[in-house]
Amino acid sequence: MEESPALTAMRNIASYILKAADEIDSNQIEELVETLVEIYKSNGGRKILVMGAGRSGLVGRAFAMRLMHLGFNVYVLGDTIVPSITDKDLVIAISGSGKTRLIVTAAEAAKAVGAKIAAITSFPESPLGKLADIVIRVPGRTKETFKMDDYFARQILGIHAPLAPLGTLFEDTTLILLDGIIYELMVKLGISEEEMRERHANIE
Amino acid sequence: MEESPALTAMRNIASYILKAADEIDSNQIEELVETLVEIYKSNGGRKILVMGAGRSGLVGRAFAMRLMHLGFNVYVLGDTIVPSITDKDLVIAISGSGKTRLIVTAAEAAKAVGAKIAAITSFPESPLGKLADIVIRVPGRTKETFKMDDYFARQILGIHAPLAPLGTLFEDTTLILLDGIIYELMVKLGISEEEMRERHANIE
Amino acid sequence: MEESPALTAMRNIASYILKAADEIDSNQIEELVETLVEIYKSNGGRKILVMGAGRSGLVGRAFAMRLMHLGFNVYVLGDTIVPSITDKDLVIAISGSGKTRLIVTAAEAAKAVGAKIAAITSFPESPLGKLADIVIRVPGRTKETFKMDDYFARQILGIHAPLAPLGTLFEDTTLILLDGIIYELMVKLGISEEEMRERHANIE
Amino acid sequence: MEESPALTAMRNIASYILKAADEIDSNQIEELVETLVEIYKSNGGRKILVMGAGRSGLVGRAFAMRLMHLGFNVYVLGDTIVPSITDKDLVIAISGSGKTRLIVTAAEAAKAVGAKIAAITSFPESPLGKLADIVIRVPGRTKETFKMDDYFARQILGIHAPLAPLGTLFEDTTLILLDGIIYELMVKLGISEEEMRERHANIE
Repeated sequence: MEESPALTAMRNIASYILKAADEIDSNQIEELVETLVEIYKSNGGRKILVMGAGRSGLVGRAFAMRLMHLGFNVYVLGDTIVPSITDKDLVIAISGSGKTRLIVTAAEAAKAVGAKIAAITSFPESPLGKLADIVIRVPGRTKETFKMDDYFARQILGIHAPLAPLGTLFEDTTLILLDGIIYELMVKLGISEEEMRERHANIE
Repeated sequence: MEESPALTAMRNIASYILKAADEIDSNQIEELVETLVEIYKSNGGRKILVMGAGRSGLVGRAFAMRLMHLGFNVYVLGDTIVPSITDKDLVIAISGSGKTRLIVTAAEAAKAVGAKIAAITSFPESPLGKLADIVIRVPGRTKETFKMDDYFARQILGIHAPLAPLGTLFEDTTLILLDGIIYELMVKLGISEEEMRERHANIE
Repeated sequence: MEESPALTAMRNIASYILKAADEIDSNQIEELVETLVEIYKSNGGRKILVMGAGRSGLVGRAFAMRLMHLGFNVYVLGDTIVPSITDKDLVIAISGSGKTRLIVTAAEAAKAVGAKIAAITSFPESPLGKLADIVIRVPGRTKETFKMDDYFARQILGIHAPLAPLGTLFEDTTLILLDGIIYELMVKLGISEEEMRERHANIE
Repeated sequence: MEESPALTAMRNIASYILKAADEIDSNQIEELVETLVEIYKSNGGRKILVMGAGRSGLVGRAFAMRLMHLGFNVYVLGDTIVPSITDKDLVIAISGSGKTRLIVTAAEAAKAVGAKIAAITSFPESPLGKLADIVIRVPGRTKETFKMDDYFARQILGIHAPLAPLGTLFEDTTLILLDGIIYELMVKLGISEEEMRERHANIE
């Protein structure tokens, strides 16, 4: 039997992510990591609120779960339990286009109370990017820019067909990047996998 | 500046996914794709319910969103709106270990009403794998088998450090595989990205 | 043993709801019910999107579940599965103050695509009330107006202590009103409890 | 214009709740309140996990939000952020029938790690009721017992028509009871509404 087209597409997406890593700025990542390390040292005194709409929101939730496993005091916009945010807290907002209305509105509300905003977006010049204190640019076709990004996909992968619809490349790349950040935090904070397992939900 | 360790880890995870594609059985994928194509042709008469706990649940939700964009009548366990399931419907259950209690219990309930069960798991011999009609085996360290999978990671990547904690490799690999399946469905069903964009949530 | 203070408070809240029913305008309710009956007759062609933040959002979700049991094509903002909204659709937005930022922003987005907006709020003159096509005014202390509403509570119940904190009276009153609307829809649409039970989630 | 049937049904439900208060055992409530007061004094060291399926789950979430506003360290099964549960923690499980499969399974898992279980149910002899350490019986028609409870409704209200479909009476009565418990906790713990408002989510 021939290989399933799904596997071919899977390889293409993974190759895209591999090459996207070349496009991401280490300094931007280190700025976020340093802020997270500081927050960790507050022993729960400083909170993190993660937000994103649609699949970007799911990627944010996956990151938030791991931050909880590391011992952070972390929350997700849209969960039942979301506390009041203050000027000591960090908001991590994920939006490929940087224009998602509810996320920009929520980030503005967080900025108004003095929270630090970290944006993960393909567009540092977007409304979300502009209001953020820390921006990590993650390349990806977004809903807004599929034509431009199709060109980008051709450039780096040499393929002409649409690789993945809508925000897929941004979302998948962001998930893997954030899991890379989890790895870096484990190392920097000296947290073992065993400690993380102990904090993992046991009612599921 | 040296490259951020997060980027190195990101590359390692993407490389893992790339090589994991070699381990996944095209026949298993095609069985699921054929069932999905049949369901699509029912014009909403047959429903899909996606389920998973924790990060596996988030991966399932990301897949469910894209199935909705393709025009499927799809639901997610844990959402507010979840209809009654019948023997015409398909349940897609995601669990690395195949032992997650609430997912096995829910899959048993679905099987009892005659629904078809597709399991995505690292362990076809697990309780979830055994009760499923379709099984796609996705390699990955899971919470249960981190030692074995650490060996697997060494084998394919030549690295010795833990690549990613807990179920990360299973979850990330599964997300990219499922996005590959979305690509295959677009091609097989002749659905353009433009049609998907029109079905994308516009209140966000 | 003396009666638990919780039971006394429970009676006070139920008494408040009973008397709040005198303050709610039947014409406003009938306007919403007629719209819902029209939508029902579209056989799923017209969708309903329910939205609210915090506990108002939970009240909206409880209403949405029952609308699904009645056979409506209904969705909840914040669920994984939320389709694109069009000018044929109805948005039901719940906010005591009528000023909740994310809900006003979402309702504006819905209005921009031409959807009909029904607001349930204590303040018809609020931003949400003003943009809505249908407004049902539900009395209640809200976060914004606790002093005024404390007066209102004294007026109708003759008690001076705070009856219930924050938006509790609005939220509880709204839930019971919406369950009253479900009863009216059952009667008007001729839907039996048995039909509703068949549509109730069976995987739980 | 005649009164809307929805308002009449609303009055009936509120009257039902008012009379249901006579059926609820103050001792059972006080047992839960005392446990909550003890947990409060642990200053976040002891956690609470609230769980319920469908509308019972929404009622539990509304209670959990208020517990958070009071300063409890509280989580909801189904939220993204759910920590590991230990033998110091309290699980509050809500199920009218006491037989909801996923809730019984989750409560069993919590009991296995030694957590204290409080059940809110119409059936103390149900699987959930039997495994619980604290049971509060809340009368209500449930999906299982609609005939019996229809009789109960006739008894206390003198009406013959179905008052509210499926679990409505249990769910609505439980919400108002739990809001009564919040009032009692405010008084017992000396927490002002102002303190609660400060803990209320400000990004919404």
